[in-house]
Amino acid sequence: MLKLQKILNKKERLVIGILSGTSVDAVDIVLVRINGKGQNSRIEVLNYKEYKIPIILKNYILKASDKNTGFVDDICRLNILIGKFYASCINKFIKKSGFSNNDIDLIGSHGQTIHHLPKSEKYLNIKYKSTLQIGDPSVIANQTGIITVGDFRTADIAVDGGGAPLVPYLDYISFRSSKTDRILLNIGGISNLTYLPKNCDFNEIIAFDTGPGNMMIDYISKKYFYKEFDKDCKISLKGELNTKLLNEILRKDNFVFTEPPKSTGRELYTEDFVEKVIRKYKNEKLENILHTFTEYTAYAISENIKRFIKPKNHFEILVSGGGANNKQIMNGLRSYLPDAEIKNVDMKGITISNKEAVLFALLANETLNGNKTNLKSVTNAKRNVILGKICLA
Amino acid sequence: MLKLQKILNKKERLVIGILSGTSVDAVDIVLVRINGKGQNSRIEVLNYKEYKIPIILKNYILKASDKNTGFVDDICRLNILIGKFYASCINKFIKKSGFSNNDIDLIGSHGQTIHHLPKSEKYLNIKYKSTLQIGDPSVIANQTGIITVGDFRTADIAVDGGGAPLVPYLDYISFRSSKTDRILLNIGGISNLTYLPKNCDFNEIIAFDTGPGNMMIDYISKKYFYKEFDKDCKISLKGELNTKLLNEILRKDNFVFTEPPKSTGRELYTEDFVEKVIRKYKNEKLENILHTFTEYTAYAISENIKRFIKPKNHFEILVSGGGANNKQIMNGLRSYLPDAEIKNVDMKGITISNKEAVLFALLANETLNGNKTNLKSVTNAKRNVILGKICLA
Repeated sequence: MLKLQKILNKKERLVIGILSGTSVDAVDIVLVRINGKGQNSRIEVLNYKEYKIPIILKNYILKASDKNTGFVDDICRLNILIGKFYASCINKFIKKSGFSNNDIDLIGSHGQTIHHLPKSEKYLNIKYKSTLQIGDPSVIANQTGIITVGDFRTADIAVDGGGAPLVPYLDYISFRSSKTDRILLNIGGISNLTYLPKNCDFNEIIAFDTGPGNMMIDYISKKYFYKEFDKDCKISLKGELNTKLLNEILRKDNFVFTEPPKSTGRELYTEDFVEKVIRKYKNEKLENILHTFTEYTAYAISENIKRFIKPKNHFEILVSGGGANNKQIMNGLRSYLPDAEIKNVDMKGITISNKEAVLFALLANETLNGNKTNLKSVTNAKRNVILGKICLA
Repeated sequence: MLKLQKILNKKERLVIGILSGTSVDAVDIVLVRINGKGQNSRIEVLNYKEYKIPIILKNYILKASDKNTGFVDDICRLNILIGKFYASCINKFIKKSGFSNNDIDLIGSHGQTIHHLPKSEKYLNIKYKSTLQIGDPSVIANQTGIITVGDFRTADIAVDGGGAPLVPYLDYISFRSSKTDRILLNIGGISNLTYLPKNCDFNEIIAFDTGPGNMMIDYISKKYFYKEFDKDCKISLKGELNTKLLNEILRKDNFVFTEPPKSTGRELYTEDFVEKVIRKYKNEKLENILHTFTEYTAYAISENIKRFIKPKNHFEILVSGGGANNKQIMNGLRSYLPDAEIKNVDMKGITISNKEAVLFALLANETLNGNKTNLKSVTNAKRNVILGKICLA
C-alpha cells in the first residue's frame, strides 16, 4: 500500500487519461499535470497522441459489441486483449513524452464501451440500468506498473444513473466563467452539451444529449460515397437542402424534442433509421441527402439550445469532437444561433481531440481524492458517488 | 478518501467474503475478523450463510456463460444484476449477524465466473490468457456503503498466470503446520489440492487441479436418476465397481496424469465426455456406472497425490467442498492412501462450506495491505502481484 499512500499525499500528480470511443478507430492518450483537487483542480496538458486500432481488432470489437454476434468467449478474451493493447500504447506514449513509467503517478482509463443500456429495466423485482466497458484496468496497472483507475460508469449505474454523460465535471472544472454563460458542445457520433451559467456552482449545471452528431452523416458517406467520412464537407457542400426531407427526419426522430435530462446511445440513429427516412427519396440526388442530414445535426443542436437552455443575450459555445471540423455544421450553428459566439474548444491546452482523454485523467485523480464526480441532476442518479475502480501496481 | 485511509490504518478489520460458484446454486457469504497482515493474518469466523440463487436467475447466468448462447446484452445486464443481488444478500446478512453496515470495514467479492480460458492464446502478436467474472464490485460498494475489493483473477492473468487457483494463500495462512505435512483438498465440480510441507514457507507450496470432482457424478445423477446430486451416495452405493469402465474413463482422461502445475475448467469433464465413455456400456446397470464414476474421482485424486506429491509416512488431508460429504469418495481416499489421516476441514471456524468465502475476505484485506497473494509457481504467472480492484463507497 506504500505506493498508493505516497501518491495520496501528493498535491500535484502526473496523470495519464486513456479511452477508445464507440467508433473504435483509435486509442486517445493524454498526459496531464493536475494540481490541487475538487473544484480547485488545475490541469496542465503536457502531451497527447492517438494510436490507431488495427482494423482486424476494430472489427473483432464491433462484432463483440453487437447483441446478435457478441459472444461471451470473445468478450472474455477482448477484456484482457484490449487491456494489453492499451498498456502497450501507454508504454510507448510515456517514452515518447520523455518520461519513464516511474514518473507517472496514475492512469485513468475509460476502456472500450461494448454495450450501453441506459433505460431502466426490471428482472426479478430488481430495477437496473446497465453499461459494459472492457479493457481490464488490472491488466493496464500490471503491464505498466502504474496505479490505474478504470471503469467509471458502473458506480453511477449502481445508484440508478444512466452512467453518462460524465464530461460535465471536466467542463465545470475547466470552463466555468465569471464573465459569460457557456455551452460546451461535443459533436461525436451523437451530440451532447453542458451548460454552465455565468458563475454557476456545481449543482446548477445542465447537461444532456441533443441527438445526432456525425453518426448518420458518416453512415451515408460510407455507404453511398465509399468515404470513411465527408472530409471538409466536400460532398455535402455540393448538395442543397431538401426541406421536405429535413422535416421527414424530424418526424421520425422522437428523441430530439424530448425534455432533458435525456441520453441516447448509438442504437437510435442507426443505418436502419437513415434507410427508413430516405426510402421515399429514391430520386433525390445523394449529395442533397448528405447535405440535409448534415444540416439536421446543426438544426437539432440549435433547437435543443433554444428550447431547453434559452440562453440570455450573449453566450459562448465551445465545440469539441469530430463535428467541430465540419464547416457546414459550424456555419449552421452560427446562422441558427446568431447571439452565440461559437468557436472550437482550445483553452488551457484542452482541444477538440484530447478533451475526453483529459476527462478520464481528471476523474481518476478525483477518485484518489475521494471526490464524487457524477452529477445526479445530469445522469438521473439517486446521489453523487465516487466513480471508478482502483487497481494497485 | 478519508474512509479508506481510516480503514488502512486499522490493525483489525471486519471483512465480508462473498462468491457464487460455477454451479450457480447459491451465494456464500461469510463475516470474519482479521487481525494483522500478510503471513501473520489471524482469521476469526463470525458468521456464515448461504443464499439460494433463484432458479430463473441461475438459468439466465448459465445461458450467458455458454459460448453458444451468451450474448453481450445479457452479460451487460447480468454484471449489474448480480452486483445488486449480491448487495441485497449482504445487507440482509449483516443485519442477521447483529451488525450494521457501518460496522463492516470491507467486502471481498469473487463475483460469478461466466467464462475461463486459462490456456495461452495469441492475437495480433499479443499473447494472453483470459477469465471473466461478473457482479460489478462498484455496484456492491455503492449498494452497501462498504468499500469493496472485487475481481481478483485478472491481475494474475495480466502477468500471464491462469488466474487460478487462489486458495493456496488461505491454505498457507491458516493451515500450515509445524508438526505434519498437510494436503488441503477441495472437491468441487473439479478437484484441487494444496500441499503444505511441514514448516514450509510461501514459496514451497505446491498446488494444482487433480481432475474431476463432482461434475460427472452430478451429471449422471441428474440425467439418469433425476436427482440434483446423489445425496448420501444412496444410488452409487447400490452399485458395484466396473473395472473395465474405470480403465475406459482413465484412457479418455488426458488431464489426470499430466505433470503439475496444471489447471482445468468445466470444459473437460462435460456431458460429452461422460456420454462418449459410457457409449459402449449400454447394458451396464446405471447404478454401477454411477458407482464407477464416483470411485474414479477418489482414484484420480489419490493417484495425483502418489505420483506428484509423494508424501512421507504420516500426513494429513483436510477435505472441503461438496465432495467432503460423499462417503464413497472419502472411503475410497482412505483405502487408496492408507498412510494419510483424512478428515473434513474444520479448524479455526473454517469449514467445508465457508472456506472459499473466507478466502475472498482474506484476499480483499491483503489488497488493502498492499500484499501480493497469487503464487506464481502455482498459477504460472510471471510474478506475484497485488490482486483485486478497490471500489470506494
